[in-house]
Amino acid sequence: MVEKTESNVSDKQKNFQVEKPGITVKKQEDFSEWYTQVVLKAELADYSSGKGFIVIRPNGYEIWENVKNFFDAEIKKTGHRNAYFPTLIPESLLKKEAEHFAGFVPEVFWVTKAGNNELSEPFAVRPTSETIIHDAMKRWIRSWRDLPLLLNVWNSVLRAEIKSTKPFIRTTEFLWQEGHTAHSSEQEAEKEVSEILDLYKRVAEELLAVPVLIGKKSDKEKFVGAVYTTTLESIMPDGRALQMGTSHHLGQNFSRPFEIRFLGEDGEMHYVWHTSWGISWRTLGALIMTHGDDKGLILPPTVAPVQLVIVPIVFSESSKANEVLSKCQEIKSQLQSSGFRVSLDSRENYTPGWKFNEWEMKGIPLRIEVGPRDISNKSVILVRRDSGKKESVPLEGLSQAVLTLLEEIQRSLWEKAKKLLEDKTKNASTFSELSEILDRDSGFVSTYWCGSRECEDQIKDKTGADIRVIPFGQPSDMSGLNCVLCNSKAKFFVYFAKAY
Amino acid sequence: MVEKTESNVSDKQKNFQVEKPGITVKKQEDFSEWYTQVVLKAELADYSSGKGFIVIRPNGYEIWENVKNFFDAEIKKTGHRNAYFPTLIPESLLKKEAEHFAGFVPEVFWVTKAGNNELSEPFAVRPTSETIIHDAMKRWIRSWRDLPLLLNVWNSVLRAEIKSTKPFIRTTEFLWQEGHTAHSSEQEAEKEVSEILDLYKRVAEELLAVPVLIGKKSDKEKFVGAVYTTTLESIMPDGRALQMGTSHHLGQNFSRPFEIRFLGEDGEMHYVWHTSWGISWRTLGALIMTHGDDKGLILPPTVAPVQLVIVPIVFSESSKANEVLSKCQEIKSQLQSSGFRVSLDSRENYTPGWKFNEWEMKGIPLRIEVGPRDISNKSVILVRRDSGKKESVPLEGLSQAVLTLLEEIQRSLWEKAKKLLEDKTKNASTFSELSEILDRDSGFVSTYWCGSRECEDQIKDKTGADIRVIPFGQPSDMSGLNCVLCNSKAKFFVYFAKAY
Repeated sequence: MVEKTESNVSDKQKNFQVEKPGITVKKQEDFSEWYTQVVLKAELADYSSGKGFIVIRPNGYEIWENVKNFFDAEIKKTGHRNAYFPTLIPESLLKKEAEHFAGFVPEVFWVTKAGNNELSEPFAVRPTSETIIHDAMKRWIRSWRDLPLLLNVWNSVLRAEIKSTKPFIRTTEFLWQEGHTAHSSEQEAEKEVSEILDLYKRVAEELLAVPVLIGKKSDKEKFVGAVYTTTLESIMPDGRALQMGTSHHLGQNFSRPFEIRFLGEDGEMHYVWHTSWGISWRTLGALIMTHGDDKGLILPPTVAPVQLVIVPIVFSESSKANEVLSKCQEIKSQLQSSGFRVSLDSRENYTPGWKFNEWEMKGIPLRIEVGPRDISNKSVILVRRDSGKKESVPLEGLSQAVLTLLEEIQRSLWEKAKKLLEDKTKNASTFSELSEILDRDSGFVSTYWCGSRECEDQIKDKTGADIRVIPFGQPSDMSGLNCVLCNSKAKFFVYFAKAY
Repeated sequence: MVEKTESNVSDKQKNFQVEKPGITVKKQEDFSEWYTQVVLKAELADYSSGKGFIVIRPNGYEIWENVKNFFDAEIKKTGHRNAYFPTLIPESLLKKEAEHFAGFVPEVFWVTKAGNNELSEPFAVRPTSETIIHDAMKRWIRSWRDLPLLLNVWNSVLRAEIKSTKPFIRTTEFLWQEGHTAHSSEQEAEKEVSEILDLYKRVAEELLAVPVLIGKKSDKEKFVGAVYTTTLESIMPDGRALQMGTSHHLGQNFSRPFEIRFLGEDGEMHYVWHTSWGISWRTLGALIMTHGDDKGLILPPTVAPVQLVIVPIVFSESSKANEVLSKCQEIKSQLQSSGFRVSLDSRENYTPGWKFNEWEMKGIPLRIEVGPRDISNKSVILVRRDSGKKESVPLEGLSQAVLTLLEEIQRSLWEKAKKLLEDKTKNASTFSELSEILDRDSGFVSTYWCGSRECEDQIKDKTGADIRVIPFGQPSDMSGLNCVLCNSKAKFFVYFAKAY
């Protein structure tokens, strides 16, 4: 019916319209193409003009808003406060911490002109805000009474990307939050780093149902300018690791060049201890890759902007149309007042079947079908997006049934993702085992490492894999354990993986 | 006591610390300096490195969050959805609508390099997003079913400022929202423009207690690329007008060069009708200027991040300290559970008097003083920030008393601001009257105008005033009414003012 009215549409538009609306490849067969199709067809994001840039569309942004609202509320409970700092950072500021500058400069966008005037000093478009924020902290911190200073910013950062774009995963600009805190002692800063990492873990696991490994990065992989970086890493169905967020201990690496000192209770001047931490819309990439199936997106109920969609099973010509529609409205109000996020698809000109496909592709966790027969039975049909399982449920007690099902869906997605992580995690005691696993299945490979940069680099060269994480819980006794490459005494139990 | 411990502080820091913490000028005597001191000392914002840039600090950002949350919830009710578009716009895109480009190009920041590489095409740092959003709409809009498309973005925009910086009022970068909608008919687009203007009026009047005039801009003052611009304008205590927000009807001025067409229900292809609209952190500037007094900021309760501060009246050495503090905690919990935003200032090392001054400067609407004598009387002291009026209120029924007082404060700030607008609005029937009022009191001057650009320009040259607003409600009969400058037949009843 849609095609019939399109006699005046250009050929290009016609092609678009008749294009199969669903996902045309299988997740197992072409994971990368499958991912791109889900992102575009579920209208989560779109490519934009300008290399590597994307637009996050409302369906995607609303998921991001849910991540944001959860995290924002949690950090506010512990005294963090939001602020906003400039997008443009004078070059001289970015240069103040040498290692930091060297690390970022290859990917910085430079503003050199305002209107028709050349600027005497170029501005960097923010690749991260440590420098501009520490510049301000220097003015704001005087005494121990001003500490801790716990700031957070919701913004975007830009890094010129040379590799190919992957929406949410690898883009020139991305949305994130960046936290920046200053403390009077090293211990307090380290506690902050670890508490934020724990909170990120809750975002990944409780909200997105994506299990993660946590620990430290190696010196090679840490944030430029940090003393150390902690990380959370998940594994995707194609066996590649995805870094979901990082929390850095900056020590006094920034407070010294920026001269951020405070008068201690001891009457002496001290440099502050800094942390910084960020989590980005990459989390959406992890969610899509982890839970989706051949029909499209699957959203965990906790983070789904719409948890239930009600579809009236009736054709608009039918005499029952009004009755069904008003029953649907009633169910919608009832479920909304129980606190669920509900949508009613009352569009005419679309068949129920067409609507089922659309909402399945868009990943809505639960569908409620309401037809004339259901009304006379005083029941509705509930269909789970994850399993496709249908059941008839009495209208009496519907809210409780919906709650139970949504919890089951959340748990079931979590269990499946947890099994994926387990299946994709193997152990290697020799280099040939390590490289064989990485060649065959990829995934995480746990093994031992001597701690030398040389071995780390060689393994990367030979296998394409990095040390993703050095778990906090290291074996208490390393005697008899050797580095997977050089065979010398092991210092760390680590996870290698190829990564996004 | 603060100064005693500061033996090791540098001279510069010493100067900072001993600087009088309160506002050192009177609002009436040096309005501009008063404003800057309030912004800096109430820690709403700070200057940043880079000409014209400011940082919005947590005290300011939390007010902005309240504005944002209100507006965001309202536009979502009417089907608008949030998205995010790139910060960088390719030059060729910005050029597509010629008038728009010409208007913005003098103040655009240009990115010409990424890392060490010259870009083949420069990027504009977003001065506004019409072009990059319409570029995407072209791909998303196919048929009437895709309309209306109602998008909103919370972001910042950058415009190289040559004039002197005034925090929130005139800054190189500012936070705002920009709404962009596409409609299938002109009427629907015009309705959108007007509904958004009404909502902006509610933000100004209900939330910020700042009364506004609404109407259209003259062609000279309209948004570059718009068919017409509607505006809300407030008057500040120094008699200068402040534009609080604008809502534009773009007609088909963008859909034609961007080729955004849709298949209508009539089977024909049509260009869409666009609107765009924005409100920024300027609203915070208006709030500060309108309500503040010689002691500092005064926040309307509706938008105050903290509505009440509880100050224990006791010295930490006193035996009653614990009892008072636990009573304060109890009152805090009680008021929080009644839905108020409450803070308890339990800091030691600060006297109650010092705390009073600080919270007064920061504009908290209501202070609750709790001392040992109050506890035995089963009452507390409530002190209004706006009037300084103190009253003793029984603990029994405190929530209701607080609610009543907060409502009174909101109303009283509104009445005062309304009186300011009335006092600052005069009528002129001759040019000498007009210019005499603008010289003496400034403020709004209502008068008649022939509609010619020439008269508008000449009045600007001679008086420094613009046409701020052409009210929607024009006199039905203009016969006998003449232009204030050229004396030819009047076309419009208008308000002139000097403006920020």
